[in-house]
Amino acid sequence: MLKDPNIVYIGRKPVMSYVLAVITSFNSPDTKDVTVKARGRSMTTAVDVAEVVKRRFMKDLKASKITIGTEELQQEEGGTRNVSTMEIMLTRD
Amino acid sequence: MLKDPNIVYIGRKPVMSYVLAVITSFNSPDTKDVTVKARGRSMTTAVDVAEVVKRRFMKDLKASKITIGTEELQQEEGGTRNVSTMEIMLTRD
Repeated sequence: MLKDPNIVYIGRKPVMSYVLAVITSFNSPDTKDVTVKARGRSMTTAVDVAEVVKRRFMKDLKASKITIGTEELQQEEGGTRNVSTMEIMLTRD
Repeated sequence: MLKDPNIVYIGRKPVMSYVLAVITSFNSPDTKDVTVKARGRSMTTAVDVAEVVKRRFMKDLKASKITIGTEELQQEEGGTRNVSTMEIMLTRD
């Protein structure tokens, strides 16, 4: 499967590395939106990334769609654990 | 100022205390929506609260509106620091 260039998965790196990834994705002129995806604690970083991109770098962006959900994670020791997820779609105005 | 019974502010308590607060707010029959508000790290808890209420306790709820933003906090040592904020509105279907 090809990696979708319009999705940025948020993990445990500093906010600015994901900010750069989002800005890079928007560099292609036919990119109208980029979605930032995170789960668990990284959701805080996802919101920070969206806010920093919008306020400091690309003031014409809007958080056009924000969704939350729950994913079941398989645990190594057996059983499942629920983890919350978040997606923030950033759209060029 | 009166405390708005339809807003639940998320802090550092366990998820279940806020879940209970949301369910209690919905107990009044004229309450159609409850908004969960958080900033910084507590945003993760806010998403968890919304998801647990929706999935485990009140399956007719929808996260009807999710907004993110930035607040400037005054620091004790002078200067300001930006903190991300999130609001999740839960609405009875």
